[in-house]
Amino acid sequence: MRTTVGIIGGGPAGLLLARLLHRAGIDCVVLESRSREYVEHRQRAGMLEQGTVDALHEAGAGERLDAEGLVHHGIELRFDRERHRVDFPSLTGGRTVTIYAQTEIVKDLVALQLAEGPPLLFGAEALAVEKPESASPVVRFRHEGRERTLTCDWVAGCDGFHGISRDVLPAGAGRSYARSYPYAWLGVLAEVAPSCEELIYARSERGFALHSMRSPSVSRLYLQVPEGTDVRDWPDDRIWDELAARFAVDGDWTLQRGPVTAKSVTPMRAFVHEPMRHGRLLLAGDAAHIVPPTGAKGLNLAVSDVRVLARGLEELHRTGDSRILDHYSELCLRRVWQAVRFSDDMTRMLHTRADEDAFDHRTQLARLRRITGSRDAAAELAANYTGLPLPL
Amino acid sequence: MRTTVGIIGGGPAGLLLARLLHRAGIDCVVLESRSREYVEHRQRAGMLEQGTVDALHEAGAGERLDAEGLVHHGIELRFDRERHRVDFPSLTGGRTVTIYAQTEIVKDLVALQLAEGPPLLFGAEALAVEKPESASPVVRFRHEGRERTLTCDWVAGCDGFHGISRDVLPAGAGRSYARSYPYAWLGVLAEVAPSCEELIYARSERGFALHSMRSPSVSRLYLQVPEGTDVRDWPDDRIWDELAARFAVDGDWTLQRGPVTAKSVTPMRAFVHEPMRHGRLLLAGDAAHIVPPTGAKGLNLAVSDVRVLARGLEELHRTGDSRILDHYSELCLRRVWQAVRFSDDMTRMLHTRADEDAFDHRTQLARLRRITGSRDAAAELAANYTGLPLPL
Repeated sequence: MRTTVGIIGGGPAGLLLARLLHRAGIDCVVLESRSREYVEHRQRAGMLEQGTVDALHEAGAGERLDAEGLVHHGIELRFDRERHRVDFPSLTGGRTVTIYAQTEIVKDLVALQLAEGPPLLFGAEALAVEKPESASPVVRFRHEGRERTLTCDWVAGCDGFHGISRDVLPAGAGRSYARSYPYAWLGVLAEVAPSCEELIYARSERGFALHSMRSPSVSRLYLQVPEGTDVRDWPDDRIWDELAARFAVDGDWTLQRGPVTAKSVTPMRAFVHEPMRHGRLLLAGDAAHIVPPTGAKGLNLAVSDVRVLARGLEELHRTGDSRILDHYSELCLRRVWQAVRFSDDMTRMLHTRADEDAFDHRTQLARLRRITGSRDAAAELAANYTGLPLPL
Repeated sequence: MRTTVGIIGGGPAGLLLARLLHRAGIDCVVLESRSREYVEHRQRAGMLEQGTVDALHEAGAGERLDAEGLVHHGIELRFDRERHRVDFPSLTGGRTVTIYAQTEIVKDLVALQLAEGPPLLFGAEALAVEKPESASPVVRFRHEGRERTLTCDWVAGCDGFHGISRDVLPAGAGRSYARSYPYAWLGVLAEVAPSCEELIYARSERGFALHSMRSPSVSRLYLQVPEGTDVRDWPDDRIWDELAARFAVDGDWTLQRGPVTAKSVTPMRAFVHEPMRHGRLLLAGDAAHIVPPTGAKGLNLAVSDVRVLARGLEELHRTGDSRILDHYSELCLRRVWQAVRFSDDMTRMLHTRADEDAFDHRTQLARLRRITGSRDAAAELAANYTGLPLPL
């Protein structure tokens, strides 16, 4: 098989790239190792910056998003049994965010892709990228029991943190930066109307909790738990009791409980690989960098990478100008590091850890009081949360 | 001896309190353990927030400050061999800071005190505060070789971090919070015109450096050094070479060298005692809290405490209303914790430490890039640096 851009990974990054390239008249093929059923049901993030919403529209995938996405105008910060709202439009000159689950984005993009092309192969497991430094890199992959090759002009590594793309880089081609946090998130999906209209980020002495939602009838909740927690230690009642304790406030507020339909534990870590390009292999999204979910930045960063990558390939295709691709890594990484910093700030401000002392707790509370008590600090949080300017 | 307010400590906090009380017609006596010569030559901070300048005017000590203080409209952040200015007035609605050494403030206040009263006893070493819970606490002190007593309605503990006032509190009367940083500042006073018009906060891979000034002909410089550094390991040439290396930029800029007239090493730590009042003993300034000097907040916090304390005593004296004094601790502590948080942020952002990895360094640089690249983040720094709103 031959194509202009071989895309490894059919998550939101790979699929969005394929749509943008297709619309620009550029040939590509998407290889996804898992089944359609699997990728369409993987529970992931769901908070979209405006730039992400715009990119999905640009890709022709805005219809259901517009109909079903929930536009949010702020978040709640909850601490010391008090409630504080951060209002985005008034702090950012009118910006908002949209709640729409990544799994729904994937469904929308898959449907478009299967209807209009370009090719999307499920169960196509990439095994290697050969000659990434050459003008014709080759992706070797296994599909339907046979080993096959895809010869490309460019290869986009969109196969996530555990994918093979980053491993292709020769030792010494760049550098990695990693941080792990000594806690994890226990995520819960529940068939119950959300107990709030906007997301609640709660810091309590018992640890962090987040109340989010997937739709008007499905709640998404998270609890800070120790690293290495076994989901079996958390029967539903224990989860609800702990959530209720962490969200408790002085005054009227009740956490609605309902049937739990999914539970999982996600480690908290950050990782960045620099540079994001090696020869004609370009990494995008989680393949190049991950952030702890506290800032809701992972999906948005992937989309921001993909926008730059699509523009770069389009410009090269249309005019022969390779400047965007030549600077792909620098263009993306400045924003990536800002998201890493913001995610780290949010994570440290809201989680408690065993090795912290009372001094740390007091400075955490001072930080929360500053954000909820001053326009300057709230504006800085809102600017980061709703999304820093795109690289292009 | 008998007085209304016994003030332990003749540093800027105690002296300013005495002036403000005197102007309000309230009796007081200041006990200072050191000599006049000593207190007038102790090298300390020199960056005054507007609220501090206002308080000095209110105390009648604004004349030389107005004539000799240097009004600064911003600071420079220097990193990655680049220079970035943070402009205060445009970010804060017109606020500035004033450079005027603490040692000069002390001289001004001592002169006024000796000329107009109330009594200021040098070489008067406080030994104990007795019966702080009673209506007539007694300060025992040694003066001119004799032990004496000062019976008061109120005692103000303004005797700094190493003073006796805080030790008077019975075990269990409150709680302390402490943090020490694994580095210190080597401070240098040099007879040379400053190499800059505004303060330079420099972060380099070699560590932090700060360029400040005492006057148009005297430079004040600081180097991050390891905890426990011996000043004798730092001959002048080594200091200048290290400063030059840390301040180095791409482009034209030269560090002016000159005779070093003083050198000292200051540990970097934060400490807060809560509450700041016990019975009729009220702590103010360093006696209750210290911050690392990176945020230039120590002196300003002391002045902000003293303003609240003077208002509280004045209101009680004038109207019999004790509400300010009753809430003295809460009124002060909110702002204290904000200053602790800001000082901690500035300290972590600018210093390097041996136990940090490349990930930490990248997030530090991302933080500096965010502040120097966005109005929101710069405004938040400027608001904190120029001084958060006063408690009263």
